[in-house]
Amino acid sequence: MSDSQIETVLAVLSTDQAGAEQRLFELLRIPSISAQSDHAEDCVRAGALVSDRLTELGFSSKLVATKGHPVVLAQNFAAGPGAPHLLYYGHYDVQPADPLALWVSPPFEPVVVDGPHGRRVVARGAVDDKGQLSMWVEAFAAWTAATGSLPVRVTAIIEGEEEIGSPSLEAFLAEHRSELASDAAVISDTNMWDVATPAITTRLRGLVYTQIDIGAASRDLHSGLFGGSALNPITLLARVLGDLHDDQGRVQIPGFYDDSDEPAADEVAAWQALGFDEAAFLGQIGLSTPAGETGRDALDRLWARPTAEPNGIWGGYTGEGAKTVIPAEAHAKLSFRLVPGQKPQAVLDGLRQFLAERLPPDVRFEVHSFGASPGFAMDFGSPVMAAARRALAAQFGKPAVFVGSGGSIPVVECLKRVVGVDSLMMGFGLDDDQIHSPNEKFELCCFHNGAAAHARLLGELGKI
Amino acid sequence: MSDSQIETVLAVLSTDQAGAEQRLFELLRIPSISAQSDHAEDCVRAGALVSDRLTELGFSSKLVATKGHPVVLAQNFAAGPGAPHLLYYGHYDVQPADPLALWVSPPFEPVVVDGPHGRRVVARGAVDDKGQLSMWVEAFAAWTAATGSLPVRVTAIIEGEEEIGSPSLEAFLAEHRSELASDAAVISDTNMWDVATPAITTRLRGLVYTQIDIGAASRDLHSGLFGGSALNPITLLARVLGDLHDDQGRVQIPGFYDDSDEPAADEVAAWQALGFDEAAFLGQIGLSTPAGETGRDALDRLWARPTAEPNGIWGGYTGEGAKTVIPAEAHAKLSFRLVPGQKPQAVLDGLRQFLAERLPPDVRFEVHSFGASPGFAMDFGSPVMAAARRALAAQFGKPAVFVGSGGSIPVVECLKRVVGVDSLMMGFGLDDDQIHSPNEKFELCCFHNGAAAHARLLGELGKI
Repeated sequence: MSDSQIETVLAVLSTDQAGAEQRLFELLRIPSISAQSDHAEDCVRAGALVSDRLTELGFSSKLVATKGHPVVLAQNFAAGPGAPHLLYYGHYDVQPADPLALWVSPPFEPVVVDGPHGRRVVARGAVDDKGQLSMWVEAFAAWTAATGSLPVRVTAIIEGEEEIGSPSLEAFLAEHRSELASDAAVISDTNMWDVATPAITTRLRGLVYTQIDIGAASRDLHSGLFGGSALNPITLLARVLGDLHDDQGRVQIPGFYDDSDEPAADEVAAWQALGFDEAAFLGQIGLSTPAGETGRDALDRLWARPTAEPNGIWGGYTGEGAKTVIPAEAHAKLSFRLVPGQKPQAVLDGLRQFLAERLPPDVRFEVHSFGASPGFAMDFGSPVMAAARRALAAQFGKPAVFVGSGGSIPVVECLKRVVGVDSLMMGFGLDDDQIHSPNEKFELCCFHNGAAAHARLLGELGKI
Repeated sequence: MSDSQIETVLAVLSTDQAGAEQRLFELLRIPSISAQSDHAEDCVRAGALVSDRLTELGFSSKLVATKGHPVVLAQNFAAGPGAPHLLYYGHYDVQPADPLALWVSPPFEPVVVDGPHGRRVVARGAVDDKGQLSMWVEAFAAWTAATGSLPVRVTAIIEGEEEIGSPSLEAFLAEHRSELASDAAVISDTNMWDVATPAITTRLRGLVYTQIDIGAASRDLHSGLFGGSALNPITLLARVLGDLHDDQGRVQIPGFYDDSDEPAADEVAAWQALGFDEAAFLGQIGLSTPAGETGRDALDRLWARPTAEPNGIWGGYTGEGAKTVIPAEAHAKLSFRLVPGQKPQAVLDGLRQFLAERLPPDVRFEVHSFGASPGFAMDFGSPVMAAARRALAAQFGKPAVFVGSGGSIPVVECLKRVVGVDSLMMGFGLDDDQIHSPNEKFELCCFHNGAAAHARLLGELGKI
């Protein structure tokens, strides 16, 4: 790549920011909620919109059916057989939007509002991951418009089940292993350090997501006539969830920490040098007191320590007023964030043992698993990582920092295990983007900087 | 009353059983769910149906407006100024019918099915309390048809808020105190000992019903990005509910047992003589292991010991599949059954202290109260009690037993305190009637025996 080439590409991006925003908004208007079966057609529509756009950009693109929502599979090999081959990954599905009452505008009608960093777009999926995947699609478009082709060979996969644990992804990767074999994967589904400081994510927590169903009596009971004799499944569920952590915040499931790796001392030291302000981090969400394990640094707790969190709970009467019932059943969604070393199946087994040890013999319980992936740590020293550092430094005028993420991107582990490629995680979200919450937003400065950084990365990758 | 008079009255009841059933079914078809505001008009319709029936029977009857649902107030003083004055109490409102999916027939379309005791009617409110109040209305009708009037002066009140803690009743009783002044109150909202053995209830537990709202962060959070640093209100709620009881089943709220009376030794001895089979009691609902305080007899636990039971819980994601959220809020409905001596306000205060001691400073919590009434114990030796024993022995051919009830009938305490009358609790439900549960039923043999026993009671009361 010549310097003039990248300047031309960046100029294309710069002059068509309004168009890039409109293309993003069109995607945001599709309520592609993968968790809810009545939105299955919306998922197909979102996938088709992305696929059609890639076709316009010269890709050979199609929707590949799975047992769940389809995967977009697109290839553009115009750079020729000698060029590096990069695998771009994104997801077009989004989290459910509830509680709807807390949104200031409808979740699937994107609106642009002003904030401290300028214009931002508010919508479900604004950043996670429709906004982020759109950045690299825009970078492909700018390269194509400016130079007639991409500087590297590109395969792109955009799945529709990331928010429900990617149940169909592994089979898809295995089936298309030879087409996907590449020099590295590129993923934008993570955050910057702050609005001015780019970051490369080198560490991800894994995820085990479960639903626990507890049943006691064969029917709902009158709490006056049976209270004092009959078991109450809400009480039992509360006891086991209340007992998940000890008074030091450590998870009490048998064997939970057995295989968990501690981060290296220099990695911890680098995190400490970042000067993370946990008080400010918590302050933005109205809290002041850290939770989690005592005696651990904040970034250690957020990036390198496993957690157990109830994500939902329900049972008995939840309507208006009073109903004096001892219910027959109670339920919870309970998930675990895992760190490298921990084995998802061992956590599931430990959870079942934990419940069996605490619930009385009369009680029925079931643990359903909705996806399980281990934690993951990256290789710091690859040529792709170096290319990304150059691209980010050029775009932002300062070096990228290496960070962890408490979230889970199971595809990273899956791409390594099934396809054999390492992932570069270069994302442009901010901590306060409210992903998975009402009023999810994406700073449009981050969107445009991200698209430009992706354009620069393509140029840098063309040289390796 | 002459023996021929009561035989004539009983003959009227006996020949019009089909009519009595149809009148009950008409009342059961009205979904008068007091807890749900969209059923407010149904409550008025149910009250009006009862009121119109009493008017037909020669009562002066009207619906008296309250801040909530109206009270039916009806008087029939045809017996003349020298006759005893009895106050009949019932309630036309019913519990919510959910979960609807567990009903074998629609809850407000009464159906008659066969069971081990013959025909039974299945519907919400079949026994609690539409079926039971209909028994004494049928007894009024039979006396009127057979003799032209009632043998005693009768005032009847039928409220529409019993299932939500009777929030308007006390003001109603205070306002109408002089009209309600009477020799005793008669209430049918309790059970027989078994289908062949009548019972008089001499002891009731009180009720404090609350909703607890717990809030932590100012918005829902991504469990990966915030897990390990941010408080989880579901975990906090689970901890406090899981900590409600110690490992002996005793409630750990400060001062909870301070003023609770123990039953007299001879009362406990009489309960033991009843030969209550807790294994069978639990077996009918699919359980085998008693809950509640260890070291206490079953009937002591069910009738004379206070309890704390969560009646509902909700928070976070409760839909299909997975959502990795740490919610901003979690909620529970929590109720307490009280025994004589315990003070409802002290229990509420103790609950607030219990929560304040256990929740960290960042956490907001509120305790809402939906009604509070103390426990109550009756005078065994009154003339009305003696009349009831004669009536029941004549109808069933065996003496009535004295029992407690774990349920709450706050009107009993309120009638004593505000109006100054003692209540006779003579009910005809069975333990397996599934009140407050799906498929609530009433044995039609109990319905007809109850109506006849009420007719006999009216005759006996005419003599006192």
